[in-house]
Amino acid sequence: MNKIKVALNGYGVIGKRIADAVMAQEDMTLVGVCDVVTDWRIKIAVAKNYPVYASTPEAYTAMKNAGIPVAGTLTDLLKEADIICDATPKKVAVANAEMYKKAGVKSIFQGGEKHSLTGHSFVAQANYETAIGRSSTRVVSCNTTSIVRVFGALKNAGLLKRAHGVLVRRATDPWESDSTGIMNTVVHETVIPSHQTEDAQTVIPDLDLTTVAIKVPETLSHFHTWRVELTKAVSKEEILKVLGNTPRVIFLKENDGLKALNHTTELMSDMGRPRGDMWEVAIWADSLNVQDTDLFFNYQVYNQAIVVPETIDAIRALTGIEKDGTVSINKTNKALGILHGHIFESKPVIKNAPLLV
Amino acid sequence: MNKIKVALNGYGVIGKRIADAVMAQEDMTLVGVCDVVTDWRIKIAVAKNYPVYASTPEAYTAMKNAGIPVAGTLTDLLKEADIICDATPKKVAVANAEMYKKAGVKSIFQGGEKHSLTGHSFVAQANYETAIGRSSTRVVSCNTTSIVRVFGALKNAGLLKRAHGVLVRRATDPWESDSTGIMNTVVHETVIPSHQTEDAQTVIPDLDLTTVAIKVPETLSHFHTWRVELTKAVSKEEILKVLGNTPRVIFLKENDGLKALNHTTELMSDMGRPRGDMWEVAIWADSLNVQDTDLFFNYQVYNQAIVVPETIDAIRALTGIEKDGTVSINKTNKALGILHGHIFESKPVIKNAPLLV
Repeated sequence: MNKIKVALNGYGVIGKRIADAVMAQEDMTLVGVCDVVTDWRIKIAVAKNYPVYASTPEAYTAMKNAGIPVAGTLTDLLKEADIICDATPKKVAVANAEMYKKAGVKSIFQGGEKHSLTGHSFVAQANYETAIGRSSTRVVSCNTTSIVRVFGALKNAGLLKRAHGVLVRRATDPWESDSTGIMNTVVHETVIPSHQTEDAQTVIPDLDLTTVAIKVPETLSHFHTWRVELTKAVSKEEILKVLGNTPRVIFLKENDGLKALNHTTELMSDMGRPRGDMWEVAIWADSLNVQDTDLFFNYQVYNQAIVVPETIDAIRALTGIEKDGTVSINKTNKALGILHGHIFESKPVIKNAPLLV
Repeated sequence: MNKIKVALNGYGVIGKRIADAVMAQEDMTLVGVCDVVTDWRIKIAVAKNYPVYASTPEAYTAMKNAGIPVAGTLTDLLKEADIICDATPKKVAVANAEMYKKAGVKSIFQGGEKHSLTGHSFVAQANYETAIGRSSTRVVSCNTTSIVRVFGALKNAGLLKRAHGVLVRRATDPWESDSTGIMNTVVHETVIPSHQTEDAQTVIPDLDLTTVAIKVPETLSHFHTWRVELTKAVSKEEILKVLGNTPRVIFLKENDGLKALNHTTELMSDMGRPRGDMWEVAIWADSLNVQDTDLFFNYQVYNQAIVVPETIDAIRALTGIEKDGTVSINKTNKALGILHGHIFESKPVIKNAPLLV
C-alpha cells in the first residue's frame, strides 16, 4: 500500500500532536514539519528525527543560524507531500491556502480559520463522506467538535429539540501561561450567543442551540454545562445508551473518584497517553439527569488534543484512501487508543504505559 | 540473574511512579502494589496488570466490594517481596516500619518521614555506599534531594563555603488541586530556617546552608533561588563545568526558549516522558553568575518525580545487588532516560515518544 505523504505546517500545540498522530497511523507517513521558531519547540522535532522545514525564507535563515538542521522551506516540503495539515496562527493560514492550492497539495486547516476559507467544515462522525475527494477542509475548533459529537448523536437519535450551553473555557494553554494567562477573575465573551453556535452549524446546519462562553483562570481544559430540551421524555438510561455508543465520547463516574478537571488530566497521564492527552469528550455520567423533557449534563473538553483524531480522519477523507468514515474513525481510534463509553469498562484502557504482562 | 522482588505500599503520586520505574529496570520485578483506595487511582494499577493488594483488612473488604481484584493484604504481599518501598502518608509509614521488620523485608521510606525512623537518609550520588546491606533507609524529600545533588557537587569540588536558598514551593499536587490548593496569595513557612536545611545535613552532615520556604498558587513544580558564598573566586564556566558533570542535573538555556516553569513541564511532555516527569534538577544556566566569591543561580525541582530514581538506587543499595553507586545510578538513568548537562546536547533526548527512524 502506498502511504499518504503528510506534511505539517505550524509545529505548535495542535501541530506537534498531529505530527505524532500521523506517525502512529499505518497508512500515513510524515514527510516533514514546518515552522518559524528556533527554540526548544522545534528542537524536539529535530530530536525526533522529523524532517524540519522553514515556513518562510526569513525563518530558514534564522533557523540555520540557530543551528537547526533545516531541510528546506515550505515550498520544498510541498513537493514531497500529498496533503498538508496547517496548524499555523490565524492570519498565516489564510495566506498559505493559496500557496497549497498552487502547489496542487490538498490541505486541512484548523478551527481558528473561517468556514469560508475551505467551504467545508469537518467532524468525522458527522460528515466524513462529504469531504471525500475535496481539495481542502477545516477541522472545527475543540469546543465545536465536542458539540457536534454530542448533539449530533442526540439529534440522530431523534431526541434533540434545542440546547443551551455555558462554555467555561481554560484561559490559555499551559506552555504560554507565563505570558498570556489571566488570574483571579472571570472574563466573558461579550457576544452572545458565542461563535460556537454558528460554528457547529457549519457541520450540522439545522442544529438548534445557543452558547455563552466565559473564561476562568486555569489551564487544564474546557468545561461545558448544558441544558437540553428533548423532543420527548426519556429515561437517563436511554440517554446514556445513546451517548455511550457515540465514538470519542467517554463517561466519567463518581465511584471511580472522578470529580474535577484535574482528576481527569491526572488519569490520562497515568494511562500513559502522550502528553496526558484526552481525545474524547468526557461526560460526568452521574450528575447527568432528565427532568421531564429537560436533560442536564456537564462535560470536559481537552482543547489541546480533541481535534487531533478529527484531523487524521480528514486526511483519509480528502485523499480518498478510505471511503467509509466509520472505518477511518476506527483505524484512528485503534492507533491512538481512543475510547468510548465508561472509561474503566473499555478495554484496553492502557497504551504506551508500563504493563505487567 | 535473580531479579529483586520489589513491593510498593502507597500507590499515590510518588508510589505509582516508583512502580513504573521498577518495571523499567532489568534487575527488578514488581511483585505487587498496595493501597487503601477504591477509585481511578488503583483502577489504573489493575489496568496495568499490577497485582493489587490491600494495605489493611478493612481496605481489603472495601476494595473487594468495589470490584477491585485484590490479591491479598499487605501481610500476603510481604511474603512475596525482598524489599518494600513505602510511599504512604506520614503516620501510616511509621506504623508500617515495625511490620516490615517483623516480616524480614527490607524497606525504603520517603522524605515525609523522620531520619530517626531508619537512622539513614539517602541520596544516591552522596552516600550510596553507606546504605549497602542496611535493612532500611529514607529517600529524602524532593527539595532536599535537589540540594544534596547540587551543593554536594559544589562541596566535592572544594567550592562551597556556605549557601542561602529561598524555596518557592508549588502549593499542592495537580491531582488534588481541587481540594487542597491555595490561590491568590503567598504562604510562608513560619519556621526559619526551614526544615530542608537540617534535612540535607542528614545526608551530608557538614553542609553549611540556610533555607527559607514559601508556597505560591501553582501546581507545576518547585523553584529555588540561591546565593552561594564560594571558597574562592572562580569563573562561571568553572561552575558550569562542575554542575554539568553532576548526574541528574540539567541546564536550561534561554536560547532554547526555556524561561519559565511551564516551558520546562511542556518540554518534558514533548519528550514523551511518562506523565511529563522531570527527574533532574534543572538549572537556568544563563542567569547563573558569579560576582567575586558570590554565586547566584535559580533552579526548578519537579517534586512529583525527582525522588523516583533515588528510590530505585536505594533498592539496589539495600539489597546489595550492586555495590557501586555510580553503576547503579547509570543503570537507573539509562532505564528511565535521565540526562545531565545541557539538555539539547545530551543524546538521545527522546525516549518512549514517536520517532522517525
